[in-house]
Amino acid sequence: MTLASPPYADTGLLGPVWGLSGAASETSDHAYLRALLDAEAALTRAQAALGLAPAEAAAAVTEAAVPAGFGIRSLAARTPAGGNPVIPLVADLTAAVGEEYGPYVHRGATSQDIMDTATMLVAVRTLEPILADLGRTERALAGLAVGHRDTVMAGRTLTQHAVPTTFGLKAAGWRALVLDARDRITRVRDSLPAQLGGAAGTLASFQAYGAEDAAALTQAYAREVGLAAPALPWHTLRTPVADLAGCLALTAGALGKLAADVLTLSRTEIGELSEGSGGGSSAMPHKANPVRSTLLAAAARRAPQLAATLYGSLAAEDERPAGAWHAEWEPLRDLLRLVGGAAAHAAELTEGLRAHPATMRRNLDATRGLIVSERLSAALTPVLGRARSKELMTELARRAHAEDRPLHELIAEQTELEEVELNDLTDPAHYTGFAGSLTDRALERR
Amino acid sequence: MTLASPPYADTGLLGPVWGLSGAASETSDHAYLRALLDAEAALTRAQAALGLAPAEAAAAVTEAAVPAGFGIRSLAARTPAGGNPVIPLVADLTAAVGEEYGPYVHRGATSQDIMDTATMLVAVRTLEPILADLGRTERALAGLAVGHRDTVMAGRTLTQHAVPTTFGLKAAGWRALVLDARDRITRVRDSLPAQLGGAAGTLASFQAYGAEDAAALTQAYAREVGLAAPALPWHTLRTPVADLAGCLALTAGALGKLAADVLTLSRTEIGELSEGSGGGSSAMPHKANPVRSTLLAAAARRAPQLAATLYGSLAAEDERPAGAWHAEWEPLRDLLRLVGGAAAHAAELTEGLRAHPATMRRNLDATRGLIVSERLSAALTPVLGRARSKELMTELARRAHAEDRPLHELIAEQTELEEVELNDLTDPAHYTGFAGSLTDRALERR
Amino acid sequence: MTLASPPYADTGLLGPVWGLSGAASETSDHAYLRALLDAEAALTRAQAALGLAPAEAAAAVTEAAVPAGFGIRSLAARTPAGGNPVIPLVADLTAAVGEEYGPYVHRGATSQDIMDTATMLVAVRTLEPILADLGRTERALAGLAVGHRDTVMAGRTLTQHAVPTTFGLKAAGWRALVLDARDRITRVRDSLPAQLGGAAGTLASFQAYGAEDAAALTQAYAREVGLAAPALPWHTLRTPVADLAGCLALTAGALGKLAADVLTLSRTEIGELSEGSGGGSSAMPHKANPVRSTLLAAAARRAPQLAATLYGSLAAEDERPAGAWHAEWEPLRDLLRLVGGAAAHAAELTEGLRAHPATMRRNLDATRGLIVSERLSAALTPVLGRARSKELMTELARRAHAEDRPLHELIAEQTELEEVELNDLTDPAHYTGFAGSLTDRALERR
Amino acid sequence: MTLASPPYADTGLLGPVWGLSGAASETSDHAYLRALLDAEAALTRAQAALGLAPAEAAAAVTEAAVPAGFGIRSLAARTPAGGNPVIPLVADLTAAVGEEYGPYVHRGATSQDIMDTATMLVAVRTLEPILADLGRTERALAGLAVGHRDTVMAGRTLTQHAVPTTFGLKAAGWRALVLDARDRITRVRDSLPAQLGGAAGTLASFQAYGAEDAAALTQAYAREVGLAAPALPWHTLRTPVADLAGCLALTAGALGKLAADVLTLSRTEIGELSEGSGGGSSAMPHKANPVRSTLLAAAARRAPQLAATLYGSLAAEDERPAGAWHAEWEPLRDLLRLVGGAAAHAAELTEGLRAHPATMRRNLDATRGLIVSERLSAALTPVLGRARSKELMTELARRAHAEDRPLHELIAEQTELEEVELNDLTDPAHYTGFAGSLTDRALERR
Repeated sequence: MTLASPPYADTGLLGPVWGLSGAASETSDHAYLRALLDAEAALTRAQAALGLAPAEAAAAVTEAAVPAGFGIRSLAARTPAGGNPVIPLVADLTAAVGEEYGPYVHRGATSQDIMDTATMLVAVRTLEPILADLGRTERALAGLAVGHRDTVMAGRTLTQHAVPTTFGLKAAGWRALVLDARDRITRVRDSLPAQLGGAAGTLASFQAYGAEDAAALTQAYAREVGLAAPALPWHTLRTPVADLAGCLALTAGALGKLAADVLTLSRTEIGELSEGSGGGSSAMPHKANPVRSTLLAAAARRAPQLAATLYGSLAAEDERPAGAWHAEWEPLRDLLRLVGGAAAHAAELTEGLRAHPATMRRNLDATRGLIVSERLSAALTPVLGRARSKELMTELARRAHAEDRPLHELIAEQTELEEVELNDLTDPAHYTGFAGSLTDRALERR
Repeated sequence: MTLASPPYADTGLLGPVWGLSGAASETSDHAYLRALLDAEAALTRAQAALGLAPAEAAAAVTEAAVPAGFGIRSLAARTPAGGNPVIPLVADLTAAVGEEYGPYVHRGATSQDIMDTATMLVAVRTLEPILADLGRTERALAGLAVGHRDTVMAGRTLTQHAVPTTFGLKAAGWRALVLDARDRITRVRDSLPAQLGGAAGTLASFQAYGAEDAAALTQAYAREVGLAAPALPWHTLRTPVADLAGCLALTAGALGKLAADVLTLSRTEIGELSEGSGGGSSAMPHKANPVRSTLLAAAARRAPQLAATLYGSLAAEDERPAGAWHAEWEPLRDLLRLVGGAAAHAAELTEGLRAHPATMRRNLDATRGLIVSERLSAALTPVLGRARSKELMTELARRAHAEDRPLHELIAEQTELEEVELNDLTDPAHYTGFAGSLTDRALERR
Repeated sequence: MTLASPPYADTGLLGPVWGLSGAASETSDHAYLRALLDAEAALTRAQAALGLAPAEAAAAVTEAAVPAGFGIRSLAARTPAGGNPVIPLVADLTAAVGEEYGPYVHRGATSQDIMDTATMLVAVRTLEPILADLGRTERALAGLAVGHRDTVMAGRTLTQHAVPTTFGLKAAGWRALVLDARDRITRVRDSLPAQLGGAAGTLASFQAYGAEDAAALTQAYAREVGLAAPALPWHTLRTPVADLAGCLALTAGALGKLAADVLTLSRTEIGELSEGSGGGSSAMPHKANPVRSTLLAAAARRAPQLAATLYGSLAAEDERPAGAWHAEWEPLRDLLRLVGGAAAHAAELTEGLRAHPATMRRNLDATRGLIVSERLSAALTPVLGRARSKELMTELARRAHAEDRPLHELIAEQTELEEVELNDLTDPAHYTGFAGSLTDRALERR
Repeated sequence: MTLASPPYADTGLLGPVWGLSGAASETSDHAYLRALLDAEAALTRAQAALGLAPAEAAAAVTEAAVPAGFGIRSLAARTPAGGNPVIPLVADLTAAVGEEYGPYVHRGATSQDIMDTATMLVAVRTLEPILADLGRTERALAGLAVGHRDTVMAGRTLTQHAVPTTFGLKAAGWRALVLDARDRITRVRDSLPAQLGGAAGTLASFQAYGAEDAAALTQAYAREVGLAAPALPWHTLRTPVADLAGCLALTAGALGKLAADVLTLSRTEIGELSEGSGGGSSAMPHKANPVRSTLLAAAARRAPQLAATLYGSLAAEDERPAGAWHAEWEPLRDLLRLVGGAAAHAAELTEGLRAHPATMRRNLDATRGLIVSERLSAALTPVLGRARSKELMTELARRAHAEDRPLHELIAEQTELEEVELNDLTDPAHYTGFAGSLTDRALERR
């Protein structure tokens, strides 16, 4: 096995979903290096705060623990030997700190303490731009919902026109999903803990170095690193990782729902929505591809299986498992940056989304007025009786199709319906139910 | 395509995980039928409560909506035609209610209103025995943690002895996961909503039948059916299903961690734990297979992928999707009953689990005392200096292995260590760190 | 844990994908019971064929090994205790055979020998109707490809019209996928092996009962049961299961591609295809839901994750794993019946599929003729030069949209193009490339 | 959304599975860039070979199409706009080729033609080192199987000793899985096709540029690029990707089985195997972590879900889908490099694996001789009768455990067994069944 050249695998060439997002930089190997160093420095500072290490050691480690001092490709090359990047990092950091305070680097800790803490740091830092982009997205969607509260469009089920709805209600629904995602992410983010357990989760090594109170040490460490203090070391109690999996998969899916709708409604024959700036094609100037929705849809197809791998890693034997832990690292990173990229695209997409109410109105006639047949059935039953009403509707539906004539014309010819006020009944715009009030109420949620 | 004979596919022959659990009956087709009927009856009652239907209609529908009146195999046979079981059920229920009040059956509703509401009912009803079994499990684990607070055993990382820990701490960790699962399930259960939207989520049909207030109708329905009232129809806003996926996958994984440890510690060569009543083998009387742990492990291998399918269904186009919704039904049922079965097995497993402290103690010597080498390194460094301490430990580790002698003997021969109190340092039982206080603190969580 | 009532979980109420298919009966618990009994009887017969058991024993076991003699619900209820259904089945079969020949039941075998062999039998038996339905499907698609070899329609990429294609080529593509599935299923089916290894895969128990040649015994068994003879016992060498996972996931996806296209092309606004008999809606008589495509799409969403669980079970420790094996049973059954149901629906769908060439032709004009812009660019470049050609096309695309005029009109007004024969160039039906010859060639594959 | 800094995400810091393997360099962004350029150059050369482009153009494009001339980070940064890297690459390559022959770059092709062809090239190139490493692995395993043909060890089922087996048979089983993987990879590799279809799979653009025979063009292209010629453009007929998913998931699982066994048998208490060079721990000198097995196990946990995403992408609508295609890129790369890394680690692992026959022999006694109880039951039944034999074995098993005495001692005291030759019957080394001949036969497979 010779050293691969070039050893760096990934610049984003295959990752248009996440390549340019804030999540890309927050989840890069460089970002992980920074977080690993932050975790090491925080550990020494925490020990210093409790009198277990000299203040000078804390200062020395903190000063040395900056990414610029470390060769990321060298670290990567030394990672397979022990199976994790902390082992070579500790060696390099200890050397960087120097002989006097080097012994205070990583003192009492196990690789997993640092790796897990760094991973949680990376997660918290990546969730920030994600939450910001979800915030932009929900505001854009609120704007669409307000602006199109009464814009009538076809409601579609199993690919077919069903009854009318409004674009405002649709946008409000998308927004509700984004808020669901935001709420779950926020709750998880606030709970993500630092990791501190020592070799097998008893913190015995810290005791050997003088610590008297596990809780005090853990809390000091959590405070220094800016994470929640865990009740127990969680080397093989992986709720935090599973919680991340869940809220990220939900977010990817929520944005995937938005994308599925935009893709459908952007179809050449439907044309009710356009992305603000679609991807073009030099050979086909009429094409304005819904690229952002496409990338959101791609993210939504991938996230569930990444989450599945993380949920699967809950089943981790012993005090540190042989594989389940290592299987988490890349999928969690992938999930964070996929969702990060998706959130950034979603913000741009929704802020630039163009709705075409005239096309929406025109498409409502695609069934020659039959989109209101449910309403007619309800209205005609008291007049004609249940059986006759159903018979008539079925007959008119057949004729509307066969004769290519609008339903309201055919109905107007029915002498048995002379007394009925038909204009209102056959206008799709008058059959949107509670769409308006549902939209209003949904917008009250903040 | 001829009618399969026999048409019933599943009696639990392939499902030892869930076959005998309360979850099996709560998730059977019969249970779904009952929930579908409950949903229909609640809908008519809700309309009656608002004056939109006669009280007699509500009574008639409620009276007719009992499973005994319906042929489940006939319903199943008519399900493929329209793609869901509500269509034939409504036909049969309408007939059962009779001519006068039949028109009030399913009035205004769409199939998905009933199907989703019934699914949430099934979920709530299945979560009850799950929560009860998790409660039994956590109490059994609390008992083990208290009883073995100071039972020393080897801590293991990457399959190798690392440093000592206690069985109490291990049991407290398992319990923490069970409590995490319980908390997440409880939160999700309390949020599961009824579904009411009509053909495309605008509730227009209910308006056509006289409803004046969408919120009032939805709340009355939710109250009648015993679920939360949703802010919006959620036909394609599938947060409730995703939330179920998340908490169930976490629970399966939490129990999978417990199982992974029991399986490891039950190995013939390790022998630190035994299931209360292992599965036997007639040809091999010495075998006491850890069957419950095996079934928990099997559930943990399956749940993440079932959850992935549910998360994937978030990306659902339009007001009702062509496939994403239908793809949820069986995986959600499978997940509910797998987790239900796993929780029941976990309760039995933990209540009957036998720990063998003497074997735990004996195994601690498997490394000839090297399990305390971390402690010795910490203690000898001040005496010998960092370099010499490390050199000595490496040398003694090599000799312990080569000469098959215990470390404490070899150390006792080191003249340079004459001043050091070695008995304490080399006793694994004296190197359990904060395991006791961590256990105590973890047990405070209720 | 009390006995659930009713203990049968599944009649197909939630399974419109597979409920009525041949795969439903071939994968029912009853079918598994039959296969388990077939495996037991074959084993005794194989031993008799080699002189290891009396012929009378073989006859007695074969006679007793019929499903009618066994209580499937009783077996299911006794399955959790030992973790698999073979243990109670052997007890019941031994009793049924009687005192004299009972000892020859299951002699030398381990539960997994029987369970795995039965599972392979179920798989082979279920693959038969699947292959038959794929055969129907490919013939129907061949008919569509021939019949619509020159039916022009829009080619669509990223939801937008790109350039014209033909419906014949599209149908030929679907057929190619079906043939790919058929070929992979056939190859796997022919390789599926019987299982015979005894307690830990050494066949030692058979030796203890007098067998002298492992290969001869295995071959006799394979012959009796009608499966391939394995080179080694494969208790934890799960290639056969993984191969099934792969060919079934591919088949589900192949049919999922067909479904995705039918769903898109059936949309109200597109209307180029209709399922022969769509699912109706009483309240909305205009709706003809593409139900079969919907169910195919649902199957395609689920199959990959079921396959993932099976691939995951390859990582099985020891001579029989504690969980990985048990995790295979239900997902493999689910995958078989999902794909079986999907194949049956696909046969019906393709045999009844109605194409609407006039609508296809009309939709080609949805971009006002810009669907041939690629061709115009290629043709005009030699006339106008690359730069001017591109500029002109962009300008005309803009104007076609802004003025709502067809491209061919605008082009006809361009004096610089007076010399160019435009009618041919702007007719979408003249720009289908090699669609015809590609279709012809694809149809040569048998 | 600002440009992330630094934009490169991944150097292998989180990827000890694949970081140093040949697969890392064959799947890097750089390798993709090279393959994309190879595909472009081959396309122009194929057109030149058919007289559709000047030979000088082919030479010019081939000369320019070298990675060194392109800025990979710039390309990555321009990828999100159109959603794939080919669009900016074509712009840069056209500029690099210059004004005269630039128009022959990418002529007639669509982005997907190049992207898919490049992906197949990357796959073929990555499968080479994978096959080489699998070859090393199977040879090492053959050596172990030969060398340990008669090394007796405990066979284990559901974590418990069952009956004896041999290490040779175990190694032969691992090898059989590796050969299964090799055969499936080889078959898939030889079938991987070039992609050529133009904008919507009709090759119309090539016709517009003068091509007269689709097959001839496709074959020339396939020849130039070194891949199989496809029967049809496969933009949305994704069998090649699914086939890759299947063979790679199988390979990961096959190596995962090997890892699962090595991890188990390396446990401190079992100690039957050691990795040649385990990962060490400075604080715990006795630890020799089975790092390679751990990384194999991690790969096996991830591969199935990556494969699931690829199988899921089969369901791709239209002539190019909005998301399903984009969702393939990174998971396929991840799967290739995970399996590549796993194969490299497996080769090192198996070549360095140390077996400890004395420990294997000693562990056989862990059940106090009960590991041969199956044999004793078979042998004693003719002597004592079925009932008494079973009763006696159960009693002796109980006593062996209670009195901590070996079974053979207890048996020797049974007067009713005086006539029986017990030494042979109770020696585990004499109860390995057909392990030897099974091993021999398995080794005949090449």
